[in-house]
Amino acid sequence: MAQTLRRFYSVIPAGGIGSRLWPLSRADAPKFLHDLTGSGSTLLRGTWDRLAPLSGEQRIMVVTGRAHRAAVEAQLPELRDANVVLESEPKDSSAAIGLAAAILKRREPDVIIGSFAADHVIDDVRGFRRAVTQAVAAADAGWIALVGITPTEPAIGFGYIHCGSPMQIEGAHDAREVVSFVEKPDLETARRYLDDGGYLWNASMFISRADVLLEQMRIEHPALVDGLEELAAAWDDPATRGPAVDRIWPGLEKIAIDYSVAEPAARAGRLAVIPGDFDWDDVGDFASISKLRSGGRSNELAIIGDGATVLSDHASGIVVTQSKRVISLIGVRDIVVVDTPDALLVTTTEHAQRVKSVVDALKLSGRSEVL
Amino acid sequence: MAQTLRRFYSVIPAGGIGSRLWPLSRADAPKFLHDLTGSGSTLLRGTWDRLAPLSGEQRIMVVTGRAHRAAVEAQLPELRDANVVLESEPKDSSAAIGLAAAILKRREPDVIIGSFAADHVIDDVRGFRRAVTQAVAAADAGWIALVGITPTEPAIGFGYIHCGSPMQIEGAHDAREVVSFVEKPDLETARRYLDDGGYLWNASMFISRADVLLEQMRIEHPALVDGLEELAAAWDDPATRGPAVDRIWPGLEKIAIDYSVAEPAARAGRLAVIPGDFDWDDVGDFASISKLRSGGRSNELAIIGDGATVLSDHASGIVVTQSKRVISLIGVRDIVVVDTPDALLVTTTEHAQRVKSVVDALKLSGRSEVL
Repeated sequence: MAQTLRRFYSVIPAGGIGSRLWPLSRADAPKFLHDLTGSGSTLLRGTWDRLAPLSGEQRIMVVTGRAHRAAVEAQLPELRDANVVLESEPKDSSAAIGLAAAILKRREPDVIIGSFAADHVIDDVRGFRRAVTQAVAAADAGWIALVGITPTEPAIGFGYIHCGSPMQIEGAHDAREVVSFVEKPDLETARRYLDDGGYLWNASMFISRADVLLEQMRIEHPALVDGLEELAAAWDDPATRGPAVDRIWPGLEKIAIDYSVAEPAARAGRLAVIPGDFDWDDVGDFASISKLRSGGRSNELAIIGDGATVLSDHASGIVVTQSKRVISLIGVRDIVVVDTPDALLVTTTEHAQRVKSVVDALKLSGRSEVL
Repeated sequence: MAQTLRRFYSVIPAGGIGSRLWPLSRADAPKFLHDLTGSGSTLLRGTWDRLAPLSGEQRIMVVTGRAHRAAVEAQLPELRDANVVLESEPKDSSAAIGLAAAILKRREPDVIIGSFAADHVIDDVRGFRRAVTQAVAAADAGWIALVGITPTEPAIGFGYIHCGSPMQIEGAHDAREVVSFVEKPDLETARRYLDDGGYLWNASMFISRADVLLEQMRIEHPALVDGLEELAAAWDDPATRGPAVDRIWPGLEKIAIDYSVAEPAARAGRLAVIPGDFDWDDVGDFASISKLRSGGRSNELAIIGDGATVLSDHASGIVVTQSKRVISLIGVRDIVVVDTPDALLVTTTEHAQRVKSVVDALKLSGRSEVL
């Protein structure tokens, strides 16, 4: 087992802005660069600290936008130059993870990679480690493995993994076949899944041999993988990387890895899932943050912001402030107030998911300077 | 009648900050200097425009704080220098209105004065004029007259005037005796008053001969009136005014005219009230403004502020902004958002009355720079 883990490489695609956390998260300050849990660390740093004991800090690759290079390196001083992959423009997760896979495969043909979102929260590091270790074993056996999260509520904001029969994989005794994926179901369906027990949340954790991942992607997206392989061949020579990026990257297909790899692999019976029985939060909206910060207690008012002066009279929910203004809340329950220099959001935890629609409206109305 | 009105002088005490409208209204920008109705005029200017046809613009005296002199004169370019009375510090309404009475009595011994708050809203100028004209007739007959407002709802934020028998006063056919005052009753009592029909809202409109007002005040507050008379004697000579103010004003008793004049006069049977059957609003809190601005329609979002960019998705209530920030409201009903450079308030119209408690808390916590 330890031998297998030695071939393991962590990949952190650090790309998403986190539109549902606007106006806190935005193009120049994406979600993964914020400390949303009050831990004192950004989500990116938390992800790093969770992965370093598994792969070693020399074996963590970060794929991010050029604009975020300085911020990412400031957060992760241990990050090796060779493990920084910069995107000239966002091309979704297939290109980001696929390029990491292609680069690492050239460096180590039998490498096992695991990709993990840069902006999720997991406190139970031991539980996480147990699940990933099993997933690495499944990957070593040739499977594309996911870590799925045991649902704790009928959430409608997540994708669900429908589990099939237990599998017989050495070192991965909890592994189950993946029957299918179901994107964000309605509440009734989500309740049924929760009761059924055979469904897990998709937490975007992919673990597989790099070559297996790329072979799977190639079946339905050959041009994309050709481009990634060509880029990877030019990557480690400073003289060839730049021109290759300029030539290839803009034309790459933009598609989420769920569609290019996970769904086809499930249909082909090449996908395994390890049920992860640990607390996990995608910190998807301000309701999540409010819950995380208050430890699940209602009637609490969570406050994020240095030097905030908040006066609260019968108020609960969350205040995020980047100013030193006096903020007074009176008689507002489950409120969400996000106070930034150029934008103010007021909503409730119940409506926190709809923040994305405001972002869309701002884009349409030409106010993208605040996004 | 016209002869009597010729003796009429309007007095506008422009003093109150309007704590329940914090953080919009504050010490350096009191309520009367804001346009809260969207009319294009400040409340002070609206008050002036309502009174000018009654007394003539040469016969309106404004009592205000030294700090507000420039702002008041900018609003009221017609205001004569001799009609500006500046307070060196706030001493409540008995001193403010009493000093105006004392000054005007020396200038015109038989003057009839009417004092009207600087920060109320009345759209029905004809109805207002009819009521005040009757009140002036009652004042001419020696009464201290009030204009009371016919209640339209069981409001708990106002004082109520309990009306007695109709009176026989020439030119004031609607005049009723005042039996007593009841300060802010509970909801059940307010409902009873509304049903009874014999109660009017106290809108702080006092009309009487200046000498009658001062005589009444002298009965229970002789030192106060002595001070006011002494001040008035020194007032119209620039050489004596300043020293008199410095000597006398700081020591004057601080008491509302409701307690120094209206209640004792009611007990003594010297008070008359004219029912004013016109729309009146004291714009006492953000709920009032929201209602005024939306014309009483719920589900509307009123917006006050130049250059505001407000995105609203299933939101109603009121937004007041002094910034050009993008403000997004999602799924918040009857919300109150007041956005100023150094303070932000979020509450609901239901809790708008409690804003004053925040102001009190800020005073106690030493944050008076934002008040």
